[in-house]
Amino acid sequence: MAKNEQFVSQIADIETDFPQWYTDVVLKTKLVDYGPVKGTMVIRPYGYAIWENIQRELDARFREAGVENAYFPLLIPLSFMTKEAEHVEGFAPEVAVVTHAGGEKLQEPLVVRPTSETIIGHMFGKWVESWRDLPLRQNQWCNVMRWEKTTRPFLRTSEFLWQEGHSVYATGEEAERETFAMLRLYGEFAKTVLCMPVLTGRKTEKEKFAGAVATYGMEAMMHDGKSLQSGTTHYMGQNFAKAFDVRFTDKDGTLKYGYTMSYGVSTRLIGALIMTHGDRRGLVLPPPVAPVQVVIVPIAAKKEGVLEACRSLEARLKRAGVRAKVDDSDNSPGWKFNEWEMKGVPLRVELGPRDIENGKMTVFRRDTLEKDDGYALSDAETQIGELLRTICKDLYDRAERRMRERILTVHSPEELLDAVNRGNFARAGWCGERACEDRVKEFAQATARVLDENHTETVCLCCGKPAKHTVFFARAY
Amino acid sequence: MAKNEQFVSQIADIETDFPQWYTDVVLKTKLVDYGPVKGTMVIRPYGYAIWENIQRELDARFREAGVENAYFPLLIPLSFMTKEAEHVEGFAPEVAVVTHAGGEKLQEPLVVRPTSETIIGHMFGKWVESWRDLPLRQNQWCNVMRWEKTTRPFLRTSEFLWQEGHSVYATGEEAERETFAMLRLYGEFAKTVLCMPVLTGRKTEKEKFAGAVATYGMEAMMHDGKSLQSGTTHYMGQNFAKAFDVRFTDKDGTLKYGYTMSYGVSTRLIGALIMTHGDRRGLVLPPPVAPVQVVIVPIAAKKEGVLEACRSLEARLKRAGVRAKVDDSDNSPGWKFNEWEMKGVPLRVELGPRDIENGKMTVFRRDTLEKDDGYALSDAETQIGELLRTICKDLYDRAERRMRERILTVHSPEELLDAVNRGNFARAGWCGERACEDRVKEFAQATARVLDENHTETVCLCCGKPAKHTVFFARAY
Repeated sequence: MAKNEQFVSQIADIETDFPQWYTDVVLKTKLVDYGPVKGTMVIRPYGYAIWENIQRELDARFREAGVENAYFPLLIPLSFMTKEAEHVEGFAPEVAVVTHAGGEKLQEPLVVRPTSETIIGHMFGKWVESWRDLPLRQNQWCNVMRWEKTTRPFLRTSEFLWQEGHSVYATGEEAERETFAMLRLYGEFAKTVLCMPVLTGRKTEKEKFAGAVATYGMEAMMHDGKSLQSGTTHYMGQNFAKAFDVRFTDKDGTLKYGYTMSYGVSTRLIGALIMTHGDRRGLVLPPPVAPVQVVIVPIAAKKEGVLEACRSLEARLKRAGVRAKVDDSDNSPGWKFNEWEMKGVPLRVELGPRDIENGKMTVFRRDTLEKDDGYALSDAETQIGELLRTICKDLYDRAERRMRERILTVHSPEELLDAVNRGNFARAGWCGERACEDRVKEFAQATARVLDENHTETVCLCCGKPAKHTVFFARAY
Repeated sequence: MAKNEQFVSQIADIETDFPQWYTDVVLKTKLVDYGPVKGTMVIRPYGYAIWENIQRELDARFREAGVENAYFPLLIPLSFMTKEAEHVEGFAPEVAVVTHAGGEKLQEPLVVRPTSETIIGHMFGKWVESWRDLPLRQNQWCNVMRWEKTTRPFLRTSEFLWQEGHSVYATGEEAERETFAMLRLYGEFAKTVLCMPVLTGRKTEKEKFAGAVATYGMEAMMHDGKSLQSGTTHYMGQNFAKAFDVRFTDKDGTLKYGYTMSYGVSTRLIGALIMTHGDRRGLVLPPPVAPVQVVIVPIAAKKEGVLEACRSLEARLKRAGVRAKVDDSDNSPGWKFNEWEMKGVPLRVELGPRDIENGKMTVFRRDTLEKDDGYALSDAETQIGELLRTICKDLYDRAERRMRERILTVHSPEELLDAVNRGNFARAGWCGERACEDRVKEFAQATARVLDENHTETVCLCCGKPAKHTVFFARAY
């Protein structure tokens, strides 16, 4: 058995048992653990550091776009949920309800927020008076709760962390424009920070957010060819503005309802990047979110000068803004190699007496598994920086190529079933009728992920009537 | 009526009606608003930005100290709460309870975390196996809920935001040492970031955390002479380790219980800094946490070059790391002065055609209300940076002087009552008996805030017996 095989054997085979591979990887790399209440998760430091990197990158983009952060209460009066008819229908089955507090039964039950359109709508209704108050654009980073029957860490848990942005505009055009702008922002973020290609587009009526006029989603293709909804934006029209009396006096002196929109991504993104980039050895983390970007492993650590050289390199890289870490534990180099490979650290630098003597370092790329001992130590900052950027690009390109190759255009439910069975997305014409959408679901356990903006198909794959849309269908998490 | 008086009149007089002053200030400066559920608050962008600055500063200190961030579930099984007898007694009366979720009644009610010793103890019990796993030091930034009868924004609300750090050590000495270290860290943070002097020390048995061996607190003197508990650290001994089976195999091969400690500060700190530094015109924000550190107000904004000069100064200051903002709204300069004074922005720069011509700027200091038109525009970055540092120091010194002057050593309950009635803290000897502590509370509505490390008093103020401790007593929020 090769040196690395021992470790690989700790995790299930990615090709033959992807679900178990996922579970093994998230637990063994200590990203996450199960909480004591069914369906809950503990995000451990290695996983939480990824979330913090996601937050920092996204938050800077929101700020740049002019959005302000705020914090709204966790508990929402049950009566709020019922003010928007579709909304309550969609969320009522999965809310957690506080009925007692402070030793007494509450007069009105309180819902632990599954999302905050209602309570934020209520506050916006209080704050918005004049056109001068618009647009109002706020975001919160918080926990939300949706009681789920089947749960998996990061992908679907009773409680998860997310950001939810909410805006009110004076006109529907502006609110819609922001719905598209935020979808683009998410797409750019997925590409540059998560190195993850996505399909973006409008959701069908069946798949849209409860209470929205229109929902737009970004979908990513996982290693097994299933789709993961990785972010959504919603145009609400005046639905929530009317339910919560969000009105403003316009320039012409008349009282008008505002138009609202919302958008969110969650800790699910961590699941997305694991299942996009991971391989049989475990995690492959994109450099922009990797808690450790470069691990430095001393070779013959007890030889004079080796540990010092490692520490000095670590300090230099840190000064250059690289998240570097020397592994100075008692474990053998081989053990360290295996562990940090499983943990998905983008680059490993090995530094031994001979390297130091020659002014060289050996660099191992986690994504390609290539090792190169030709790097000059003196130029480490530049070389490492360049390598990290290259890895980003290569990770994206590889995933993008895979996605492109695995989107098959199909013309019948049978073809669609065959396509998704073989781990592909299926692209097909659709008449726009719910019956045909339902039939695809029943026949192939695949759902309409998003509409393709590039609408080229002419007939519906199910009924043969003229196609109103071209749709990306897939099995989904 | 002077120009500024119109604004001042919007808020109650700080000297004669401090509670109303506080409410007026937090609402009118849009730090916060009331949530729809009684006792909840919405933290608005201006308030949330202060919290983000607090978080950034504290988080960097925790990281530097080697603490890692994580996230633990919101909902705690009710049975967990009862595993530590004192803990459940202390928190049971104020918990909110989820009894239904996913459309069904839960088999076991779930408590919305009032604090996380129990659930984190449970997880630590799962993770800790060997002495190699210790110490384990984690922190989370999250929301917590304690159902309160009387609430006030930031000071006491059903839900609030905080950080809670939890550590396990192999020995009690190490865990105790961290309890002190974190108290010192809080004190240094209060001084340098909030410009707020504090008294730190051990709490009495009566005032300690439910389940702790010892609690240490930092107390700050508010404008009205009342005390605000602004942070606490707790040494738990083996109480929670035994309740949650946190055991490790020590170097000698034997199985031992760990020793735990925890520490936390909350959004209450925002209330603390408001009530420490505020004056009759409203907020006075310490520069390190002020969302806007310098507001630039154009004078004769329509004159050619004025707005451009303001924007160019803003850009220069931002590059120098200063949170600067041009107020280019349609309001009059006078209106802007008033608004930004109420909002507590540390520095105002006024820039008009004459200033620009002379290469000068007029700078107004919010803390001293002094205006100086002698600053050179060319040197703005250095001057503003220096002024911000000076304001920090001056704010601290002023508050520290006030606190020192208003701690009176007393020798009887009557003297103590008189001292606190006149807005002072009272320092007194105490025999250590609960009866005397209770008597002070009943007689003067004052509680033991912390023990004075500098124990100099020889007799108990109540019973006349020998004093075991010297105590700072005060009325408290």
